[in-house]
Amino acid sequence: MNVHGKHHRTIWLKKDDPNVVQIIDQRHIPHHFVIENLVTVEQFAQAIRDMHVRGAGLIGATAGFGMYIAALHAPKSSPQAFMAALVEAGETLKATRPTAVNLAWAVDRQLKAVEDAGDEIDARVQTARETAQAIADEDADFCRRLGEHGKAIIKEISKNKKGEPVNVLTHCNAGWLAFVDYGSATAPIYAAHDEGIAVHVWVDETRPRNQGARLTAWELGQHGVPHTVIADNVGGHLMQHGMVDVVITGTDRTLYTGDVANKIGTYLKALAARDNGVPFYVALPSSSFDWEHRDGLKEIPIEQRGAHEVKYIRGLHDGKIVQVLLTPEESPAANYAFDVTPARLVTGLITERGICPASEEGVLALYPEKR
Amino acid sequence: MNVHGKHHRTIWLKKDDPNVVQIIDQRHIPHHFVIENLVTVEQFAQAIRDMHVRGAGLIGATAGFGMYIAALHAPKSSPQAFMAALVEAGETLKATRPTAVNLAWAVDRQLKAVEDAGDEIDARVQTARETAQAIADEDADFCRRLGEHGKAIIKEISKNKKGEPVNVLTHCNAGWLAFVDYGSATAPIYAAHDEGIAVHVWVDETRPRNQGARLTAWELGQHGVPHTVIADNVGGHLMQHGMVDVVITGTDRTLYTGDVANKIGTYLKALAARDNGVPFYVALPSSSFDWEHRDGLKEIPIEQRGAHEVKYIRGLHDGKIVQVLLTPEESPAANYAFDVTPARLVTGLITERGICPASEEGVLALYPEKR
Repeated sequence: MNVHGKHHRTIWLKKDDPNVVQIIDQRHIPHHFVIENLVTVEQFAQAIRDMHVRGAGLIGATAGFGMYIAALHAPKSSPQAFMAALVEAGETLKATRPTAVNLAWAVDRQLKAVEDAGDEIDARVQTARETAQAIADEDADFCRRLGEHGKAIIKEISKNKKGEPVNVLTHCNAGWLAFVDYGSATAPIYAAHDEGIAVHVWVDETRPRNQGARLTAWELGQHGVPHTVIADNVGGHLMQHGMVDVVITGTDRTLYTGDVANKIGTYLKALAARDNGVPFYVALPSSSFDWEHRDGLKEIPIEQRGAHEVKYIRGLHDGKIVQVLLTPEESPAANYAFDVTPARLVTGLITERGICPASEEGVLALYPEKR
Repeated sequence: MNVHGKHHRTIWLKKDDPNVVQIIDQRHIPHHFVIENLVTVEQFAQAIRDMHVRGAGLIGATAGFGMYIAALHAPKSSPQAFMAALVEAGETLKATRPTAVNLAWAVDRQLKAVEDAGDEIDARVQTARETAQAIADEDADFCRRLGEHGKAIIKEISKNKKGEPVNVLTHCNAGWLAFVDYGSATAPIYAAHDEGIAVHVWVDETRPRNQGARLTAWELGQHGVPHTVIADNVGGHLMQHGMVDVVITGTDRTLYTGDVANKIGTYLKALAARDNGVPFYVALPSSSFDWEHRDGLKEIPIEQRGAHEVKYIRGLHDGKIVQVLLTPEESPAANYAFDVTPARLVTGLITERGICPASEEGVLALYPEKR
């Protein structure tokens, strides 16, 4: 998508220098746009661990490029020494965010691809580079296709809007910053906007980490999509007054039965959507499906993060990013990171294969190979 | 309630100096505890306008004391000159927060009381002082009685908790800081806590103005009530997992039909309470009833406040209170201050007369004089 009017992905090989991978250091968004060079495995590990990059798709792509950089610098003395270095790099990368499924998947895919490339070292390095690029391209392509399917929903709604914009509410950042391009929840929005359909996005700020206020608002603004930031408390009121046409969120994990784990607060918006007859969609590439568990409320463990994320917040003051205390210093705070929206509240799932009901039957009809 | 272990109200005549009214300057809470002296009508007006004091009950009591100070300094040359000064002071005070019903009510009550006190100036000043004190005492007494009724709900729940604390969730600050003492939503909590019933409060931070994180957390902490601050997004998840026994909020205005206008986000918690079988109560002194309107969603106008309250937040940094920018500078933000929770989602209303269903029939049974 566009930044300052120029097309960007979230990660790419530096132009004219394939020894350097570049990322957007997302810690500085929305206040500063910083591009970071990654040239060692340790830099990749740090970028993932310290959340210069975040989001399932982007973490996977970063790990893929990290393995290419590892291959570039691995000892060329023997195929065994080369592979040993790659395995070690993979362990380093995997350890940065142990629960990120896409991370381990990208590392393992690279190891297998390189193994299969034969004993010639140059061919292995070339394969690692191609595989990294393929992981990134596939991520972008899945999001693009998902966006095309989701666009149909927005287009259909727009027919009854008489030229008024379709109002989409979204929560957290399931935007292109979380993937390589397009995003998941945002992909239908960008697709509609780029086709000239009038769209306006209500951006939940998404406390406590404010991914909506910081990231979604920034990326929509950069791409020129009209949007308005709101406190997480506001969506219900907007839906009561007909000011939301459709809710589209992303997901951290969606069970094949349709239960959706996503950023804390998603469930409250799904309840309000149901109470007011507003369609509630979840957008996901199929890599976000969980094919093992059946009951989201009982089986999905909910991560608890540090209290300081609730008690303190970072923002721009006098040109510098500073942290301020919001609560009494001695008050405890709890920080549940996700919640589960039961399938009964979800209108449909938007995937790269198409749209399906949030039910076992609906999902398996789209993914018959999982039966 | 207690601050630093010592009993305080939110407004009082200074000990041994009845020419001075003291308030807690709430702009500095929770980071600093500042007591402010008010000795002129202009200082009272500023304290109300700039929100050194806020909350329906406390604004009324402040206006009452402001009229007493006006009487103290009014010209004693003639009863007419005296009354003219009082009327002018009343206009000044009323203009500070034009929509605050209790403010106009307290001013008018003072004017009538002073008129009725006869022509002797000293008696009029004495009456103004007694009336100011009566307004404050009545506010505290209504909240205390409301708390006794609400305590019964907590006590009943505690019977099934086997000594575990009763978990109450509240939104915004309907605490003693919004009244003269006790508060509305907090009054049952304080009453239960003071009786030795184990209570724990989930405190919604209440974006964008963070009245929960700043004020409710502070006052509960000062009084020694166990509590945990949470982002507004968290309550639904807690209810899904049986971690909330009852929700109690305050209200800015409740229709006699049971529709409740309260801080934005209240409706989302009511939906989650209904979805999980958690009782949802609204606590209010009867002055917060609206006896004219029937349909909250259609008839209650919702105030929109400035976007800067969403985009910026104040907090403590290096010992100083500073403001930081949270969003892209150019992103628009919307700031709806209240929402309406339909009566169908409200389990009951806790008033100083007792508890009633949130319905026309229920309310009028408790207030038969309004039939």
